[in-house]
Amino acid sequence: MSKNLTKRAEDYSKWYNELVVKADLAENSGVRGCMVIKPYGYAIWEKMQRELDRMFKETGHSNAYFPLFVPKSMFEAEEKNAEGFAKECAIVTHYRLKTDDNNKGKLIVDPNAKLEEELIVRPTSEAIIWSTYKNWVQSYRDLPLLINQWANVVRWEMRTRLFLRTAEFLWQEGHTAHATRVEALEETEKMMNVYADFVQNFMAIPVIKGVKSANERFAGAEETYCIEALMQDGKALQAGTSHFLGQNFAKAFDVKFANKEGKQEHVWGTSWGVSTRLMGALVMTHSDDNGLVLPPNLAPIQVVVVPIFRNETQLEEISNAINPLLDSLKATGISVKFDTRDTLSPGFKFNEYELKGVPVRIAIGPKDLENGTLEIARRDNLTKEVVAQEAAFEYIQSLLLTIQNDLFARALEYRNNHITKVENFEEFKDVLETKTGFVSAHWDGTPETEEKIKELTKATIRCIPLDREEEQGICVFSGKPSAGRVLFAKAY
Amino acid sequence: MSKNLTKRAEDYSKWYNELVVKADLAENSGVRGCMVIKPYGYAIWEKMQRELDRMFKETGHSNAYFPLFVPKSMFEAEEKNAEGFAKECAIVTHYRLKTDDNNKGKLIVDPNAKLEEELIVRPTSEAIIWSTYKNWVQSYRDLPLLINQWANVVRWEMRTRLFLRTAEFLWQEGHTAHATRVEALEETEKMMNVYADFVQNFMAIPVIKGVKSANERFAGAEETYCIEALMQDGKALQAGTSHFLGQNFAKAFDVKFANKEGKQEHVWGTSWGVSTRLMGALVMTHSDDNGLVLPPNLAPIQVVVVPIFRNETQLEEISNAINPLLDSLKATGISVKFDTRDTLSPGFKFNEYELKGVPVRIAIGPKDLENGTLEIARRDNLTKEVVAQEAAFEYIQSLLLTIQNDLFARALEYRNNHITKVENFEEFKDVLETKTGFVSAHWDGTPETEEKIKELTKATIRCIPLDREEEQGICVFSGKPSAGRVLFAKAY
Repeated sequence: MSKNLTKRAEDYSKWYNELVVKADLAENSGVRGCMVIKPYGYAIWEKMQRELDRMFKETGHSNAYFPLFVPKSMFEAEEKNAEGFAKECAIVTHYRLKTDDNNKGKLIVDPNAKLEEELIVRPTSEAIIWSTYKNWVQSYRDLPLLINQWANVVRWEMRTRLFLRTAEFLWQEGHTAHATRVEALEETEKMMNVYADFVQNFMAIPVIKGVKSANERFAGAEETYCIEALMQDGKALQAGTSHFLGQNFAKAFDVKFANKEGKQEHVWGTSWGVSTRLMGALVMTHSDDNGLVLPPNLAPIQVVVVPIFRNETQLEEISNAINPLLDSLKATGISVKFDTRDTLSPGFKFNEYELKGVPVRIAIGPKDLENGTLEIARRDNLTKEVVAQEAAFEYIQSLLLTIQNDLFARALEYRNNHITKVENFEEFKDVLETKTGFVSAHWDGTPETEEKIKELTKATIRCIPLDREEEQGICVFSGKPSAGRVLFAKAY
Repeated sequence: MSKNLTKRAEDYSKWYNELVVKADLAENSGVRGCMVIKPYGYAIWEKMQRELDRMFKETGHSNAYFPLFVPKSMFEAEEKNAEGFAKECAIVTHYRLKTDDNNKGKLIVDPNAKLEEELIVRPTSEAIIWSTYKNWVQSYRDLPLLINQWANVVRWEMRTRLFLRTAEFLWQEGHTAHATRVEALEETEKMMNVYADFVQNFMAIPVIKGVKSANERFAGAEETYCIEALMQDGKALQAGTSHFLGQNFAKAFDVKFANKEGKQEHVWGTSWGVSTRLMGALVMTHSDDNGLVLPPNLAPIQVVVVPIFRNETQLEEISNAINPLLDSLKATGISVKFDTRDTLSPGFKFNEYELKGVPVRIAIGPKDLENGTLEIARRDNLTKEVVAQEAAFEYIQSLLLTIQNDLFARALEYRNNHITKVENFEEFKDVLETKTGFVSAHWDGTPETEEKIKELTKATIRCIPLDREEEQGICVFSGKPSAGRVLFAKAY
């Protein structure tokens, strides 16, 4: 197959859009801003889900399911002060279609089926969940509530891009309630760490842990923890957030408990989520001009075998030689595909699996049968090696681990090379325009300065890193004192 | 804990509603007709999902995800003749909320944010999926498409009941496309069989396989296969359906392929689904006046240990005695809970786990420590046995299998005792009113007769059993000739 993929250096954005479609991850649907996640893309998402779900359960969380719709009045309760509120969201106003009396082939919304109260398709579920928690919490014995939901949410985005920004997307949202501030803060940090472990160890994407500035914080949160990743084009991508909600939602929805002394207190909350956006981060961290590059942990097919044969007898000989190896690999949980299609050339197949990012490709032909060898190719660095068949089992097992580690190491090196300390605003602008990446700069701590920098450069504060050094300095923009550096970047 | 559960004989419907809430399966939400699936209920649903998903993949299907919204025009394409169409569904007409200028604390729908075309929240996804398949299918090489989706759907039901009929519910929907009629029919039957295996072997609910009469068939289908179960109150419940769509959707959405001879043909389709409704079937098949009864395959907690102790030393001794057993059980994948709470009495805990349907309960106290014994109680038949600690591991393993099998056998016996052959309409009505269950009767094959019987008795044809005997007879209602018996029942 011919890939016809735009080169990253030519047009990164176009490369991304093409690759997501050509590699069968997702495509735009006939519904504005909504995507179809295709089976190959969904298989990757399922692997993410399974691992995250395991990690959530290991940290004591249970799944549950709350309604898709949020009555408008619950939104009002959430917004203590609705003034200035503008929310792009999908609003259900009616509950019946009927035949158009003037045009029998057409359907119209039945004007007699108007809802008394409009329903909002959830953009996030704090309102509906906290209105439920009110009934679940009476005493300190009912706490903590440690609940997660896998769900679809809708935000009426005007400009959408597959995985990165879509009107509907899939995510998980954790919502927990605690008896004390300290416990809720611990939970918030714990889940940020779960996300960081997952994204780094499973997706091979290095992240920086930090907290958001007030400008970038979730509206209902007292503190937003985040993990920030860097894409190949030097733009940052927020890979997950974990919010410390204080008692905000407990107060908005009147969720109180009797403490051990029998006194009524508001509970403390957290919420945390990651979404199908991570699919975009995956593509933009590892892939190249030949197509997807998948870390073995996430690859639906980890090893593909392309037989090189001219007739059925040869294919049979190859099958006999390779099947014991494939069976051994499968037995250890490695997913294997043996592509015996006889209507496509090996070259076509090589291209196809390169495009789809299969980590390890085995080619085997008549010469290999004579020599007892296999050709084993790595997708990540496009190298090949001839390996003795008898050594292949251990070779492949170890190769998959190596690829997983190498992908992380490479991304980490790139990321670390793209954190640039600057001391003044000229350097700041220069780095953003030439080198790109994270700019590590002193900032005076005010939303006004952040806002002005954003206007001038499109860069925002991605995070105040948790591990930043104590360092007195002066703000690159205002010249006012600063207690430490923060990371700015243009971001997805 | 006191259960205060209505007795089934008093008011079956009330018993069901109370039990679903008290056993922490689900509850009504603040959103009309929508439920909250609570963690304990969701854990059961997850077990169902995992097993079904495994079965779908084993039969060659992949998961994917399609948009939540269906543009109105796609519905029109689906309905060749929209006349008479009336659909209760949630309709999105606007995409923005804003502050009410006349009342700053309130939000209103922004009248300037009206959608050009209304979006329907999917009641099912044939329309959106077939409009996508149009682009995925060009040649016979692209077929079959074997795709499943786990999703939420919305149908604006007026009268709702937890799990059985809710405005929003969770389900899976398979949508497949094939080159030939025969292959699509085979798929339809295969998936009915997958459902039957799952519901019988995993949920311990016996089902009858059959096809629907024209009245009860899915609108877009040429044939609807179904599995029908019988609840304890003698009402039937449709546990799953598998539709043979013929070329209906392919024609509505112009989905064609080039066959091996290069000729364009419409593809053949199927769709099949089961939903959170199965949770209702689970409750109404096995549970009793003391609460839930769960088959071991579906129980989030399979074995619970209630220690009987007066002080910490006793608890520690009990822990030391029981922990090796629990570790061995866990190692074989059995889920175990050791309830060491010291604020609740053993009696309270017994009641709680009875209510929640935990299949096996172990009680262990100081006497047992002396004697090296345990008391092992079965939830399903409320029997207890004293077992030597050293024999407990094998005893419990085998007991879980026994309970699973016994539950099925008991439900099967009940179901078989509630299939009654009748020869005339007096008997027909009498069985429905006194004995209840399935009525096996001759029917003349016309929708008119079925409709009249429904008006008079509220019973509908649940299915034409696949394994029915060839038997000439006369219709119990019209006296016209019949080629075989069908099963009537009142149904959920």
